[in-house]
Amino acid sequence: METMKINTDSKRYPVFIGGTVLEELPDFIQALSPRVTSILILSDETVSSLYLKETAGKLENIGQSLHSFVVPSGDKEKSFHNYYECLTFALEQGLDRHSLILALGGGMIGDLAGFVAGTYMRGIRFIQVPTTLLAHDSAVGGKTGINHPLGKNMVGVFHQPEAVFYSTAFLKSLPEAEWRSGFAEVIKHSLIADEEFYYWLVKEVSGLQDISEDKLAYLLKRAISIKAQVVSQDERESGLRAILNFGHTLGHAIESKAGYGAISHGDAVSIGMRFALKLSESISGKNLHYNMISDWLHDYQFPALPPQLEAVELLETMKRDKKSTMGHVNMVLLEEIGQAYVQEVNDSFLLDSLQEFILTDKEQYSE
Amino acid sequence: METMKINTDSKRYPVFIGGTVLEELPDFIQALSPRVTSILILSDETVSSLYLKETAGKLENIGQSLHSFVVPSGDKEKSFHNYYECLTFALEQGLDRHSLILALGGGMIGDLAGFVAGTYMRGIRFIQVPTTLLAHDSAVGGKTGINHPLGKNMVGVFHQPEAVFYSTAFLKSLPEAEWRSGFAEVIKHSLIADEEFYYWLVKEVSGLQDISEDKLAYLLKRAISIKAQVVSQDERESGLRAILNFGHTLGHAIESKAGYGAISHGDAVSIGMRFALKLSESISGKNLHYNMISDWLHDYQFPALPPQLEAVELLETMKRDKKSTMGHVNMVLLEEIGQAYVQEVNDSFLLDSLQEFILTDKEQYSE
Repeated sequence: METMKINTDSKRYPVFIGGTVLEELPDFIQALSPRVTSILILSDETVSSLYLKETAGKLENIGQSLHSFVVPSGDKEKSFHNYYECLTFALEQGLDRHSLILALGGGMIGDLAGFVAGTYMRGIRFIQVPTTLLAHDSAVGGKTGINHPLGKNMVGVFHQPEAVFYSTAFLKSLPEAEWRSGFAEVIKHSLIADEEFYYWLVKEVSGLQDISEDKLAYLLKRAISIKAQVVSQDERESGLRAILNFGHTLGHAIESKAGYGAISHGDAVSIGMRFALKLSESISGKNLHYNMISDWLHDYQFPALPPQLEAVELLETMKRDKKSTMGHVNMVLLEEIGQAYVQEVNDSFLLDSLQEFILTDKEQYSE
Repeated sequence: METMKINTDSKRYPVFIGGTVLEELPDFIQALSPRVTSILILSDETVSSLYLKETAGKLENIGQSLHSFVVPSGDKEKSFHNYYECLTFALEQGLDRHSLILALGGGMIGDLAGFVAGTYMRGIRFIQVPTTLLAHDSAVGGKTGINHPLGKNMVGVFHQPEAVFYSTAFLKSLPEAEWRSGFAEVIKHSLIADEEFYYWLVKEVSGLQDISEDKLAYLLKRAISIKAQVVSQDERESGLRAILNFGHTLGHAIESKAGYGAISHGDAVSIGMRFALKLSESISGKNLHYNMISDWLHDYQFPALPPQLEAVELLETMKRDKKSTMGHVNMVLLEEIGQAYVQEVNDSFLLDSLQEFILTDKEQYSE
């Protein structure tokens, strides 16, 4: 079992990674102070059918009343409706201020359950139990929230978990599309902060099917430590943390315009990263591996930009992004591989670049 | 103009009290850093018809785009529906992370607008501009939130404002019921922490019609300073802050069972305070002025417990209160006048006391 510590201004908490970490969960909960009065497991249909019984089984006899609530699967379920349903269930079960929420699932459940925990009676404790590769990113850092029809993750709070229990055993059941989605964030972490890790990935992970348990544990720890380092320096995203949004400005716009759930988060981010790389090359005049990385992502089956999306509407959506100020788009760009920075890019240049990117993608990437 | 400083772990901010404080608002906003990009005034129908034009007028020409959104009046409007509507409007107007929300209204607007600000893009800045006497309590301390059909203020966050601008000019238009509602919290502050202030109130405020501007400024400052002192020691209500809930455990249950809006918050709290005093006398065996304070509250036209409410259902609701843990009710009681403490009271004793209180109230207080 690997253990890491996340330090933020508001909290210090552990991340446990390994095949048998869930064995430690009951003792960890028992040791929390003030004593946990009751536990609510929030999960989705897919994950609960696979792992709810096993997880609940470990917590049944430790003394607290145990409840579980299951929402439908899919990012579009990170909705006001489900937020309200979770709160209602928690109230009906009599959860109090010393209750604990367990987020059992991928990023959608982590964000939703974290927002429920962050706002139920003005904030109760929660533990992240991620079940996807993608959640290596979202489970650490305390960002929680839900979608609004006008934008993804537009409503939420910063609320750090008590701990993250990352069972690699859960990852074995992931379908390939989910692996790919998670891998986009792993690649992102390497590109913004760790050139050596980027070369390791290119060399060691030749396909998403062949990741051994050892390599998986290694890359999880390495990717999480990049995230942890950034978050510890800037919990509330006043500066540095913004670089974690590499690929996300366009990525979010793609998800929003394609309709939540129509394209996976990681697939959208992979397109966003390619665009950001292209833009970085245009602005810096340097070779930042756009062609090589494009081919690499293509080999992993990451998709091209959905052809129905148009530059003008993508730009409009990007301008409503949380990172935009006064309607100007702030892009995360690369100075070098492993070195990111944020720059405001003016609308007309962005629109031209987007139009060119869309054309190139149609011609080359979709082949 | 009176100025006070509120200190909490997460923020230090000023409270301005006086007849002309709004004159200072434009400069204050201009001086905020990072620079405010746009301003959204949230208000309710009653307040906006009286003061929105005047308030907006002061902010029209300071450079930021200015929007306003009005929800219906009444505590029952502190709802998920209106929360969602405010967020939607904010997104439609393109509010970004450097925008500012101005809460223009009573406690309902302060709580709702504070929760919108606390969760919009995971938290943006806001300023409280209270327009009621009751809001002297809610505008300071950072508690925000909305109601759920299963309980009042069950969903929210701690989110401190940038400042509180308390214009006593706004209070002149308050109807008597609103004065009374606010005065309940003023009395509460005296009873839990300031015996001398309690005697001052008994002596100086013989009726709610005769409060001069001077006395009003004095009692506001004194009541807010009690609140500020408690909040500065315990921002997140892990201990001491709980004493501010004197009268609120039963008070909230009364509001909830009578139907939000059917009885004012202050009227419900006044009944809750009488019950807590009675209980304090039973437990301590001391004379804690129950009879005198009951008469005093009666003189001010505070009502008796609504006769349709029953002890069993009130107790059930109290057990779902945020201050309850494991289904046990924690009551705020008085040790002496001006000295409060929290004690768990067991169900059967609480039920007996409630039943007796209901009977006494029917016989004596309603006369």
